[in-house]
Amino acid sequence: MAKNLKYVLLLDCYGELLTKRQKQIAELYYNEDFSLSEIAEMQNITRQAVRDSLRHSENILLQTEEKLGMADRMLQMRFCLEQILEYSESEQIIKLAKNGLALL
Amino acid sequence: MAKNLKYVLLLDCYGELLTKRQKQIAELYYNEDFSLSEIAEMQNITRQAVRDSLRHSENILLQTEEKLGMADRMLQMRFCLEQILEYSESEQIIKLAKNGLALL
Repeated sequence: MAKNLKYVLLLDCYGELLTKRQKQIAELYYNEDFSLSEIAEMQNITRQAVRDSLRHSENILLQTEEKLGMADRMLQMRFCLEQILEYSESEQIIKLAKNGLALL
Repeated sequence: MAKNLKYVLLLDCYGELLTKRQKQIAELYYNEDFSLSEIAEMQNITRQAVRDSLRHSENILLQTEEKLGMADRMLQMRFCLEQILEYSESEQIIKLAKNGLALL
């Protein structure tokens, strides 16, 4: 179970499809960088239960991305808008690109 | 059951979360503008079964949008990129904005 950027992105896109408990555990692990043991103590469950919850959540997130592909599109859109920001000298375009980035 | 743009957008975003059959019926109704009776005949089911399938699909699409809000973000992003296209005079920015629109 690698704490990588992929799951941070997927959690951001599809976290609301998890149960409240699953989302909470996944956020503690991926976004706030707590360890399995630390989360187990915080949630008053076993380390194995934390691991099982994360694995289950990862499957839901991966399967949803496989179907919808929104996280990938969001990532490409971010790259596109960042390039617009980099190359534009127009105040108006820069403002629009920043508005676009705020949606991601 | 209004054949409105909202469901066309939601179907585009979340159609893959429906079963193959549900998606097929919803696409015939919303994207290809067939009537309930026409779809019933094509699918060899009753008009009521078509209506039930559409209602069920609409619930799934609406509930998913309520949780994820992707269709709304996509719509706002489209508006933002179209404004960039409208106001920019740089070839490079126009190309980037078109790339962005192609992701939506």
